[in-house]
Amino acid sequence: MTERLVVVGADAAGMSAASQARLRRGPDDLTITAFERGSFASYSACGIPYWVSGTVGTAEELIARTPEEHRERDINLYMRTEVVSIDVDAHTVRAKDLQTSREWDEPWDQLVIATGSTPIRPAIEGIHAPNVLGVQTLDDGSALHAALRDPTTKRVVVIGGGYIGLEVAEAVRQLGLQATVIDKSRTPVTTFDPDVGARIAEALRGLDIELVLGDGVSRIALDDAGRAVGVISESGREVPADVVVLGLGVRPNVGLAEAAGIPLGVSGGIAVNRRMQTQVPGVWAAGDCVESMHRLSGRRVVVALGTHANKQGRVTGINIGGGYATFPGVIGTAVTKVCDLEVARTGMSERECHEAGYSFVTGAVDSTTKAGYFPGAEPIWVKAIAERRSGRLLGAQIVGREGSAKRIDVLATAIWNEMTVDEVLSLDLSYAPPFSPVWDPVAVAARKAFAAVEADIASSQGDHHA
Amino acid sequence: MTERLVVVGADAAGMSAASQARLRRGPDDLTITAFERGSFASYSACGIPYWVSGTVGTAEELIARTPEEHRERDINLYMRTEVVSIDVDAHTVRAKDLQTSREWDEPWDQLVIATGSTPIRPAIEGIHAPNVLGVQTLDDGSALHAALRDPTTKRVVVIGGGYIGLEVAEAVRQLGLQATVIDKSRTPVTTFDPDVGARIAEALRGLDIELVLGDGVSRIALDDAGRAVGVISESGREVPADVVVLGLGVRPNVGLAEAAGIPLGVSGGIAVNRRMQTQVPGVWAAGDCVESMHRLSGRRVVVALGTHANKQGRVTGINIGGGYATFPGVIGTAVTKVCDLEVARTGMSERECHEAGYSFVTGAVDSTTKAGYFPGAEPIWVKAIAERRSGRLLGAQIVGREGSAKRIDVLATAIWNEMTVDEVLSLDLSYAPPFSPVWDPVAVAARKAFAAVEADIASSQGDHHA
Repeated sequence: MTERLVVVGADAAGMSAASQARLRRGPDDLTITAFERGSFASYSACGIPYWVSGTVGTAEELIARTPEEHRERDINLYMRTEVVSIDVDAHTVRAKDLQTSREWDEPWDQLVIATGSTPIRPAIEGIHAPNVLGVQTLDDGSALHAALRDPTTKRVVVIGGGYIGLEVAEAVRQLGLQATVIDKSRTPVTTFDPDVGARIAEALRGLDIELVLGDGVSRIALDDAGRAVGVISESGREVPADVVVLGLGVRPNVGLAEAAGIPLGVSGGIAVNRRMQTQVPGVWAAGDCVESMHRLSGRRVVVALGTHANKQGRVTGINIGGGYATFPGVIGTAVTKVCDLEVARTGMSERECHEAGYSFVTGAVDSTTKAGYFPGAEPIWVKAIAERRSGRLLGAQIVGREGSAKRIDVLATAIWNEMTVDEVLSLDLSYAPPFSPVWDPVAVAARKAFAAVEADIASSQGDHHA
Repeated sequence: MTERLVVVGADAAGMSAASQARLRRGPDDLTITAFERGSFASYSACGIPYWVSGTVGTAEELIARTPEEHRERDINLYMRTEVVSIDVDAHTVRAKDLQTSREWDEPWDQLVIATGSTPIRPAIEGIHAPNVLGVQTLDDGSALHAALRDPTTKRVVVIGGGYIGLEVAEAVRQLGLQATVIDKSRTPVTTFDPDVGARIAEALRGLDIELVLGDGVSRIALDDAGRAVGVISESGREVPADVVVLGLGVRPNVGLAEAAGIPLGVSGGIAVNRRMQTQVPGVWAAGDCVESMHRLSGRRVVVALGTHANKQGRVTGINIGGGYATFPGVIGTAVTKVCDLEVARTGMSERECHEAGYSFVTGAVDSTTKAGYFPGAEPIWVKAIAERRSGRLLGAQIVGREGSAKRIDVLATAIWNEMTVDEVLSLDLSYAPPFSPVWDPVAVAARKAFAAVEADIASSQGDHHA
């Protein structure tokens, strides 16, 4: 008998699941129906700031696969069609065509919830003004793209100094407009330690991006027409704005799942096991709307990143297709670029170490991306965080110029394998003068952290021979 | 009582050992005497081709630490002074000042042999002509630097198409001279698989470097003054040359150790344990002259690379200094650049897998260094070699443009930790459009290899359901 798969949300996670299931099971064995309430499927949400800035020429370039391409592979994809409810007993979803308002029930045997995330909109005055924009979907991006090219737009305020907020602020500057970032924290991108945040802040100021830090948003000032004209901070400062962008991060879009009685986890994301099964038989979930296990802290976390969405979607599709695959969790790797400054992190920040109950030491190094004498060698700073006593690598952060950030993947792989900083130091990493100093900066950071581990042991044993 | 440390050879390995020992033990506890027969200490041998080409302006830039800097740290460094013999019973070395010919016996309690390597000079006619040059030491490099700038030099033949040979050939072209590389193998750099070698050959031809492949060297033609004027291949081809460069690789410089009765290993390098101790008490060895364990094949190998020399020297020095450190072996990671082409490898090549008795499958992918739509995305090709059944990652090779090669370190770290290609696929690697496609190329290569592992299992079980 033919089984029916329904996918709710047709971006990275949903369509990866659909594609993988289709690869393993033909249309006679499995029908696949996918619903997308937006105007685009399978696009790179992370690429939106670069399209907004003009770095990427057209929105089409962000699209990995068009609806037509999916349909050619026997995936029945409804665009601009919202799933408004899920009935887990009747095994149906209620679909609504957003253009015609027609509604119908679509039956399923297997259901994939891939509803993604929505920008956090604090419950403050003015937040729903039409020129307060998110950057979450390509539809959001289209609105922002247009708003920044409106000749009346001169001043843009970004609320929140996370990755996306900063990418948007840079895009704003590239378009020659004024940009202000306002954030409650004392340094931007609080997933980084403050020492890294300070370097990011410096790079932002170098781009003439105004930073209002240590000061949250109190309300958005509106004109008579109900349009935002400024942002009022908690300290009472008013920053004029023609456009306001929400860069406060996202929350998992779980309303549909919650209403259907599909259990959420403590983090607020949909609870799934390693195969991406929810606690309701036949219902799977993947992408920004689910929670994942953090392999170091053991905590359940929601990490909205395209890379996890793709992996989770793949795992879901393989399992629905009759195979076996698991998503073994995350370790918090992330990378971004602020102007010419590359910043990357993996594992836990110092704050996250504290929260998880790890006691640690750190080691950091200023080095170069190539041999110091080689033309084009750029500065790179690497910090390694190691557990006291064991020396286990718990986290790392990198700030530098071209050629710096991707080195974080070496440390991510080391953390994944629970290596100690001493072991990292022994790794057989590649070396040639155009690529690295003879000791790669990541190894030197590990060496410094190892020295700190040894010094800590010596000092706490009263052993001061050295 | 003060102990006496003598170090033979004052480059990366020897001086790392001396420095680490000094860090842990003051001059009252340990005297350190080092002998260097050349004119330079602590320099980057890997940087020589870049100085020869003019990419690096002066030889001084290659020097990490001058003799004076070492002496300031209470290391008694004799330059242009050769150790001509070691007496392991009397615990002395015989030192000879090469300028005055004065000789004396220097006593030691601990001895570090760091005599490096010498270019392979096949026993063919003409090989000792004065314009047949190596690229091993900075003194060699000086001779080559001068020879390539001699106005009578127009045509350079490089014997051997390994890393160094190709780097020199490129330097020759950068100086506007004719370059020919002659190699017995059908593709250059035989530490890479032939599919990679073919791409390297293409890049070389793009630089107008003439390649004579599949044809060894028979003899070097000399003029009446005994200078090389051409290279005659085994097939009888004559390639004219004003300068001949030896790029046939190196062999460990073990004559001194061998004469002293210090045991060599099967590979021809000095046999050492994980702490870098030779089989003679009180005698240590480190760097290009020792053999290391290959962690995948279990074989003993000699790998002449600055990165290992530095690590081994550090380990030696820590142990002599009263600490504990080990060198746990190598996995064959290497990287080089041919014009704009970056090439890198780690683990075992297909040939090495065969030799070690591994049965394997491969997966390869053509991808981009950044998101495909991002400006400046460059092509990258990654191949992963996985053991049949187990799926263990055995090796990987990368060829691509800027931003490609250093990704090998992720796979090196994965191999070091004995990961399977399936596990590599789950790694939490960094992603943002300016740095990577959403699936990093190294993960895609692992995914392709994993698919090959599964297909192999299915086919050998007669399971053709898929």
